[in-house]
Formats: sequence, structure tokens, C-alpha cells
Amino acid sequence: MHLKEAGIDEGISEVIVTTKSASGEPNAAPIGIIAVTNKDENNYFVRLYKTSKTFSNVQETHKLAANVTNDPVLFVEAAFEPLSESQFSLFYDFPVLKEANSWILFDCVFSKKTNGSENFLFQLTPLAVKINRKEVKAINRGLNAVIEAAILATRYTLIADNHEKDEMKKMMELYADIVEKCGGRREKEALKILLETLRKSN
Amino acid sequence: MHLKEAGIDEGISEVIVTTKSASGEPNAAPIGIIAVTNKDENNYFVRLYKTSKTFSNVQETHKLAANVTNDPVLFVEAAFEPLSESQFSLFYDFPVLKEANSWILFDCVFSKKTNGSENFLFQLTPLAVKINRKEVKAINRGLNAVIEAAILATRYTLIADNHEKDEMKKMMELYADIVEKCGGRREKEALKILLETLRKSN
Repeated sequence: MHLKEAGIDEGISEVIVTTKSASGEPNAAPIGIIAVTNKDENNYFVRLYKTSKTFSNVQETHKLAANVTNDPVLFVEAAFEPLSESQFSLFYDFPVLKEANSWILFDCVFSKKTNGSENFLFQLTPLAVKINRKEVKAINRGLNAVIEAAILATRYTLIADNHEKDEMKKMMELYADIVEKCGGRREKEALKILLETLRKSN
Repeated sequence: MHLKEAGIDEGISEVIVTTKSASGEPNAAPIGIIAVTNKDENNYFVRLYKTSKTFSNVQETHKLAANVTNDPVLFVEAAFEPLSESQFSLFYDFPVLKEANSWILFDCVFSKKTNGSENFLFQLTPLAVKINRKEVKAINRGLNAVIEAAILATRYTLIADNHEKDEMKKMMELYADIVEKCGGRREKEALKILLETLRKSN
């Protein structure tokens, strides 16, 4: 199955992955879906950290859904706080995001360990696809600056080295400037949530 | 007229602006369309540099078309080399891009000088809109890294300060790494064109 029409293309597609625990509790986290292209045939993978809720849910249910969205607020919320029940809908009994432009439900099978023991590669096989909304959207530098800033923010608390922390702060300021200059209201709201989260964690 | 459905939304939308000279020669350049939102009503502007072809064409014809695309190769080509005739199509006698997901033809009227005398602000009024293709597309960090790298590359040759040049080189390497890690074939091809252009200009 080729997932380009559902928004998952070559390289790494940044999506919000939804999973559920064996007891049925939903989780959402921003994660990259890796497409490895071989003779116009794509194979899909995902890297999961051993300590993440997504990892433990996948161990229990062997499934995940990739929700395609370009809402920066949804990315930041999913990165730093649990989404509210009302943001999920169910496909049979599996949680997906109501506001996703599309989602793909994948079977998710352990493939191998990478980067030492913290990082596990899983192979993904599409089981179901839903396209909710197609659109035209120009590139907005503010949107991607939010994504880059969110990635930095999730790493920031894990870094001990002060020089590295200073470099990250400089990059964060650069991304914040791009959001202020180029972003719309959703990008600015996402940046605000992100900066408040960082302040609280310091 | 609200242009969200055609892909131009709040903040700055990165598009490829097509114009023509009085004698009918087409030009294409990557430029940001600025939407200023006031009570859910958008006003559109563009900043043009006095020395650019887009500026002189707009002085002659008072029109420009904003072509919405997320093809990184098209962005890089339009930034550094003239597009080929076959990449344009005509709306009446105005050039637009065949491969654009949508385009908006604007009336373009001088509004004011900004940032000294090199940079002019024009107000845009939509005259016609064409939507060619709606799609779902997940965020790809490689796509935006190409856009950021292209912006750096266009500035690089204008900078004299060596420290600033070194900082730009470091950023360029960071963006190149993101393209290699996250991009698909189009992002990698765009990066290749970009790096070759930089090598030639050094």
C-alpha cells in the first residue's frame, strides 16, 4: 500500500502517533514515520524510546495510528501534556485524532535495537487509512520553527552539558523569532505553550 | 476575498511569485506573501527589493501571481536560476506555474518604503484564484530545512563579515543534516542544486 495520498511520503513524516494501553487508555505523541523507498515501493518504520508510553502501548497492543496534521498547537500539546478525551475518536476501539487531516492505522512489529538499548526500531504495516480533509497550504516558516523548537525543548531537559544547553537556547531564540515574524495565530499560541512548559520545567 | 482555501493563510506564506515584464518575459522568484489579520479579515502585502526583477516587473505591469507549491526543487530553481519556458502556463497573458497546487493573481500597488530605501512594501488585491490540486501532506523537516538553507544561501553572498559567514555555514550544515536525515528524493535533489550553486559562486 502506498501512503502518499494519505500524506505519508518519502523520508521522515512528522505525525502524531496515537496508541492505547491494554486497558484501553489512549495516548498521543509527536513521532516521525520513516519511509524507506526501494524501487518506488515504500517500507515504513518507526523508532520508539524504551521509556515512552508509545513503546509500552505498542508492546501491549502491536498497533499504532499515524495522525497527519499541520496544527502546531496539537503537536506541542501532544509533546508535553496528555490530550483530553474529547480530542480522540475511535476507529473500532482504537484511538485516532478527531482533527487529523488523515490517519493510518498500522500493525507494529519489533524489528531491531538501534543506538544502544534505548531506541527500538519497529516495522509498520498499514491496516486501514482514512482521509478526512485535503487542502492547499503554502509553506509557513513559523510552523516548522515550532516543530524544531518543540524537538529542542523535549531534548533540553535531558542535556546536562552547559555549553550544549546555551547553544540550544540560542537556537530556540532563533526559532521563536521566526515564529513571531512568519507564524499565524496557531503558531504563536503553540510557541506560547512551549515557552511556558520550558519555564515550568526549569 | 479570503485566500485560506487557496493556501495563503495568516502570517507569511512562502510561495513562488511569477511576474512578467512589459515586453512579456516571465520571471519566477520565491517570496513571502504577508497576511495581516484584522477581525478575521485578511489584508495582503509583499516586500520587494528595489534591485529584483520582480520589483521592476511589478512597476511595469502592477500584477503578480502567488504560486503555492511544496516542491523544494521548484523553490531552489526559482531562487537561483531562470525557470524554463515549459514550467509556465498562461492565465490570459499572465505567467503562472504549471506545477503549482494553486495560484492567486494579485493587483499589486506600491504602499511604502521600509528598512531604508532597498525594501518596498506593496499592497495586494486578489483578482483571480485557481486551485489545481488539494492534498494531505505530513510535515517533513527536510522540506523546511531546504527553504531555510535557500534563504541563507541568497543572503550568504551579500554578507561581508567573516564571523557572520561562519555562523551561516554552521547553520547551513545543520539544515543539510536535517535534509539528509528527514528529506525525500525531492528535498535531497534541491539540497544538491543549492550546494552546487554555492560552490560556483565562491
